Amino acid sequence: MTQNNNSILTVGSMAFDSIQSPAGKVDQVLGGSCNYFSIAASFFTPVQLIGVVGNDFPTSHLEWLKSRGINTDGISIIPDGKTFHWTGEYGNDLNEAKTLATDLNVFETFNPQLSEPQKKANTVFLANIDPDLQHQVLDQVENPSLIACDSMNLWIDIKPDSLKKLLERVDIVSINEGEAEMLTGTRHLSKAAEAIQAMGPKVVALKRGEYGASIFVGNECFLAPAYPSPDVKDPTGAGDSFAGAMMGTLVSRNLDRNSITLQDLKEAVVHGCVFASFTVEDFGPARIMKLEQHEFDSRKETFLGMIRV
Amino acid sequence: MTQNNNSILTVGSMAFDSIQSPAGKVDQVLGGSCNYFSIAASFFTPVQLIGVVGNDFPTSHLEWLKSRGINTDGISIIPDGKTFHWTGEYGNDLNEAKTLATDLNVFETFNPQLSEPQKKANTVFLANIDPDLQHQVLDQVENPSLIACDSMNLWIDIKPDSLKKLLERVDIVSINEGEAEMLTGTRHLSKAAEAIQAMGPKVVALKRGEYGASIFVGNECFLAPAYPSPDVKDPTGAGDSFAGAMMGTLVSRNLDRNSITLQDLKEAVVHGCVFASFTVEDFGPARIMKLEQHEFDSRKETFLGMIRV
Repeated sequence: MTQNNNSILTVGSMAFDSIQSPAGKVDQVLGGSCNYFSIAASFFTPVQLIGVVGNDFPTSHLEWLKSRGINTDGISIIPDGKTFHWTGEYGNDLNEAKTLATDLNVFETFNPQLSEPQKKANTVFLANIDPDLQHQVLDQVENPSLIACDSMNLWIDIKPDSLKKLLERVDIVSINEGEAEMLTGTRHLSKAAEAIQAMGPKVVALKRGEYGASIFVGNECFLAPAYPSPDVKDPTGAGDSFAGAMMGTLVSRNLDRNSITLQDLKEAVVHGCVFASFTVEDFGPARIMKLEQHEFDSRKETFLGMIRV
Repeated sequence: MTQNNNSILTVGSMAFDSIQSPAGKVDQVLGGSCNYFSIAASFFTPVQLIGVVGNDFPTSHLEWLKSRGINTDGISIIPDGKTFHWTGEYGNDLNEAKTLATDLNVFETFNPQLSEPQKKANTVFLANIDPDLQHQVLDQVENPSLIACDSMNLWIDIKPDSLKKLLERVDIVSINEGEAEMLTGTRHLSKAAEAIQAMGPKVVALKRGEYGASIFVGNECFLAPAYPSPDVKDPTGAGDSFAGAMMGTLVSRNLDRNSITLQDLKEAVVHGCVFASFTVEDFGPARIMKLEQHEFDSRKETFLGMIRV
């Protein structure tokens, strides 16, 4: 089990995305919350991925994920199924996606079952997916020492009770500003964070799109602006890869819910912001799939120069 | 003339404002771009104020400004005139004001004439006002070593040529994100800053409302988030007081266009953000008129704790 001490178990969506933005249009590119999350987290720590795809999903991508230290044993491939397909559009305000179509396909019958090693995971990230499925995965993990989750406006809207029960069980929530407002009724940053903390999570990472992210722990916070990417094409996956880099950083340091400090979270959030700044530079995960460690390191230094007082 | 070495000359509007926001409504409170600017700058450096008011303007306020080290000799009081009156409204998105009425009154015939000491000013801040008047004041200053300005969407719209000629003459421009987009055609932060730098100013302070401010000098920048004020009632004057604290800080250090560094600008922007966070806490300048130095210092320390990596 020792290999689990430094790895993170994640569940979420694996998808094909068709995306239109002012920068162009792509059809059926690789997507999904835990695809983006895993790619980012893999820069920092091993990942175990739980998900479902159809027989149309390219095995080459699963092989590529494996080459990044991502364990794909937990991905079910449904022989006669089609992979989840999301179609969305961004206007000039790249902060908000308009969903044009959602084809659940193999997701409709997704019934995640963890293997014995997976049940021993220390750290769990429940990427955006139906909160009932997030519960189902979490129920199977025996004794996690750090639990984090993401969600989306859809679940706040149609499954608020399940989502709120989930928040009672997690240590860290990664949520965007608009969702935080939906959930708490206030658009005020620290009031919304406080209200979410009262629902359960000790740590609230509030994602603010092109304005960066703010993290709240207890009554302390760290406010990070976004790196001003010179060429923003597609924000899809920015939030998931932010969370991946953030959580990967924490896990790589063997931190759990009792040992995390604001200083740890600051570096984790900086990594999240830097990673997300690459994600948005091309459609789908194209940019982060060819991202080199030295590019990340170099931009991190530039970014620190921009935010150090 | 030595008293001018550490002071700043400013011209702009002195006004009565009637303001409605989700937090309430006030009628005919003190306002105006150089009123807010001067109050903030006076925390850091002496100020010389050029403006015009009607006989309805309270002399008690002019006395109060004087008590803050603000020289009001340059304020013309028009005996049979009425003070400029702005009526505006904010919706839930407090970042943008909707102007309901503008009564220019004494502003229609404002013809600023500088006294001999005023003409010797080293530092000039041209607060938001008709750019033709900004030129007229600047024309009279003999040998300024640092010139900064602000403006607003109205002037970009109706007097773009005059404004662009002004930008050629200034070292620092303080401008909000929406105005920067109007002026440059891009909503991308660093591209907009670069485009504005190409118009003249070496330093561009991009104000981002509840998201803070970013300052660009040469090819370096500093990104500052906003202090999350617990109680935002009225954003009127936030940008003017941001600029006042920023410029006041620079002037208090005897900096000119050749000696300013990014490090100076970082502290100036932090002061601007902290000051603006007080401005928004009450309607009009009510909060900053009773602001104590120790409150500013204390919030500055808190804010630094939130943004230090």
